[in-house]
Amino acid sequence: MRVIDAIQKKRDAGALSPEEIQFIIDGFTADEIPTYQMAALLMAIFLNGMNDEELAPWTHAMLHSGLVMDWSELGVPTADKHSTGGVGDKISLPLAPAVAACGVAVPMVSGRALGHTGGTLDKLESIPGFNVGVSLERAREMIADIGVVLMGQTAEVAPADKRIYALRDAIGTVESIPLIASSIMSKKLAEGVDALVLDVKVGSGAFMKTRENATLLAQTLTGIGRRMGCATVAYLTRMDRPLGRMVGNALEVRESIDILRGEGPDDVRELTVTLGAEMLVQAKVATDLETARKQIEGQLDNGKALACFQKLVVAQGGDGRVVEDLDILPKASYQKDVLATREGFVGEINAEHIGRSSMSLGAGRAKAEDDIDPAVGLEVLKTVGDSVSVGEPLVRLHYNDETRVPRAEEWILGAYSVHDTAPDKTELIIERI
Amino acid sequence: MRVIDAIQKKRDAGALSPEEIQFIIDGFTADEIPTYQMAALLMAIFLNGMNDEELAPWTHAMLHSGLVMDWSELGVPTADKHSTGGVGDKISLPLAPAVAACGVAVPMVSGRALGHTGGTLDKLESIPGFNVGVSLERAREMIADIGVVLMGQTAEVAPADKRIYALRDAIGTVESIPLIASSIMSKKLAEGVDALVLDVKVGSGAFMKTRENATLLAQTLTGIGRRMGCATVAYLTRMDRPLGRMVGNALEVRESIDILRGEGPDDVRELTVTLGAEMLVQAKVATDLETARKQIEGQLDNGKALACFQKLVVAQGGDGRVVEDLDILPKASYQKDVLATREGFVGEINAEHIGRSSMSLGAGRAKAEDDIDPAVGLEVLKTVGDSVSVGEPLVRLHYNDETRVPRAEEWILGAYSVHDTAPDKTELIIERI
Repeated sequence: MRVIDAIQKKRDAGALSPEEIQFIIDGFTADEIPTYQMAALLMAIFLNGMNDEELAPWTHAMLHSGLVMDWSELGVPTADKHSTGGVGDKISLPLAPAVAACGVAVPMVSGRALGHTGGTLDKLESIPGFNVGVSLERAREMIADIGVVLMGQTAEVAPADKRIYALRDAIGTVESIPLIASSIMSKKLAEGVDALVLDVKVGSGAFMKTRENATLLAQTLTGIGRRMGCATVAYLTRMDRPLGRMVGNALEVRESIDILRGEGPDDVRELTVTLGAEMLVQAKVATDLETARKQIEGQLDNGKALACFQKLVVAQGGDGRVVEDLDILPKASYQKDVLATREGFVGEINAEHIGRSSMSLGAGRAKAEDDIDPAVGLEVLKTVGDSVSVGEPLVRLHYNDETRVPRAEEWILGAYSVHDTAPDKTELIIERI
Repeated sequence: MRVIDAIQKKRDAGALSPEEIQFIIDGFTADEIPTYQMAALLMAIFLNGMNDEELAPWTHAMLHSGLVMDWSELGVPTADKHSTGGVGDKISLPLAPAVAACGVAVPMVSGRALGHTGGTLDKLESIPGFNVGVSLERAREMIADIGVVLMGQTAEVAPADKRIYALRDAIGTVESIPLIASSIMSKKLAEGVDALVLDVKVGSGAFMKTRENATLLAQTLTGIGRRMGCATVAYLTRMDRPLGRMVGNALEVRESIDILRGEGPDDVRELTVTLGAEMLVQAKVATDLETARKQIEGQLDNGKALACFQKLVVAQGGDGRVVEDLDILPKASYQKDVLATREGFVGEINAEHIGRSSMSLGAGRAKAEDDIDPAVGLEVLKTVGDSVSVGEPLVRLHYNDETRVPRAEEWILGAYSVHDTAPDKTELIIERI
């Protein structure tokens, strides 16, 4: 088998065979295929795509380049959720313990903040003592004991994906639906779960700006999952405004604990319940979504999800008192409100700009090696549809470094559109795929 | 300026700016741009093309990565011809001295045989003593003295093209019209000639199998030449059968000398006269093609072209007696005729198969490092339109190694199609572009 034949096949819009795909992924991971050949192939894939028959073996080869977890001996159903990333998206924090409290184990591997979107690991680390560096052995113990773990990716998981992603980043082939989908699925399927629910974000704050692209990504992701024997469902959900009211690490932990107390903003609760219910159905512990929703709602309202979260925090070295006393979370030294400059109704809030505002205060990262400040961020005081008058606060900034405020304010003022009439209502959840 | 921005622009079918192109070619040649980024860009160019506004600066940057010759101080018009390569295409040998005899200097840089097509340098080297490794200083002396030099490419010419070609070969992006055209033109324009005539071959023995692709290549080549201030004309010519009767190095020198004596096959003479006349017109020493044809024909018939060829041979260290005594050329020890197996008219002769037959006797190279045997090759005894009876010779093989004969015979029998009726006549020269 020769790499050049595979490159030419894909260049001419042909489909690679499973054997060719295995040969390429194995060869590239083992340093036997030169980077320039892989670069040419990735560009050809970017431009000519991959079909479902190619995507399953491509993902399979990436997945099996590393360790694949296996929970079968524990005898419990397992499920996970993956979000394509948004602003204020803290759903994993209330969701994982709520689902675990319903009897479905959640061995969730999460990522860090990059660009304008936050990362679950950074949010968790704002809890004093919380450790996301969990070994696979410890993860197994936690799943057996409390049914949930929220951990970072270990080096053993999908090393082929790490190498391919780094190359894609250097050669401008990141924004390719088949390459994005296979990258996500190779990491998520390495968790070895029975069921996977995907939250594909659409809109100004999402990676996919159009419904068309988001639908295609959702179909590609579920196609791979189902072909590879994992019960997979995707939801298209709106990211044309921040999710919830809090953006920033410790601030989002506060809002997550509100949700686990049966409180918090409606949109965050609704998404937690919808995705959680789907996980229960796909993991076959509930027969229909309506029953499943009641189960999740019940665990949020009866305190069991919160108790499970507390166990999780303690098991990962964190201060468990956080669930009763939010004041042990880091707090920014200063606050400043950004005020409306015209009267009317909030029509849109560009979620990416809100994310960049929070990032500019120090809550996010421009580069992977940047430090973050867990305390800073912002509170959305006026959301889409709210009426505002001149001088009323739109957003409250929480900051430690005064010099960062002007840039953050600019992003906020650029994010809000205020109109004379109220906007039409839109649904958070667009479609189930 | 960032390479990744240029890659993404081309990936999205945009046009690169002259500054971006200069930055990329210079950076890649200077080892400052990694090979994998260039590989991705080349694949994007393969799939999304380059327009005329990009091709001129792309070629310009490759050309100026090395030395560009300049003949202006000699005060003579200069011209060259380039062929995209065919079987039995020995036109450069009679053409260059015939044009030089008409007062247009020809500083011709040629290539070697590769695959089923022959190379001018290998043909010349079958003349005892002939040296194609001419320094630029010596080339200048020869142009001043006799108006012609037939030399190999020196390392100083278009080093960017050498690097890019090697990469294209490794990543399956050779067959791209803009990349082929810029590669050819960067080398040919480095000769610094006033006029360039291109012979774009079409058909079974050519790189371009269809008229459509050959036309596109011819238009691209002339577009680059004209934008870069070189008077450039292309001819589409048929390569659906071998050119002339002789295929193989010393055999083709014999046929070339026949042409220089005013003899030889009609098709070889016709192409020599057509391309030579165009060179005279483009170099502005003749006002119209008809007058120019008479000039070339005159020099072939009055012995001056032959005399010029003799001077060239002597100036490059070869045995000048070759023009009077063909027997000083190497001769194969054995001959064998391949016989017709059915009666009728020769309908087609697949030129690539004829080339592969000659190559299998040792006249060509499968890999750049293979040795060639200057003496071996074949004579086409029956050409398209000829009537044949069973047992009549089609082709005479000239060989030194008996074990290579069966393979060569197989290629010949596969190359000929014999039909009950005579084929329609076709013209050698299809179109002037």
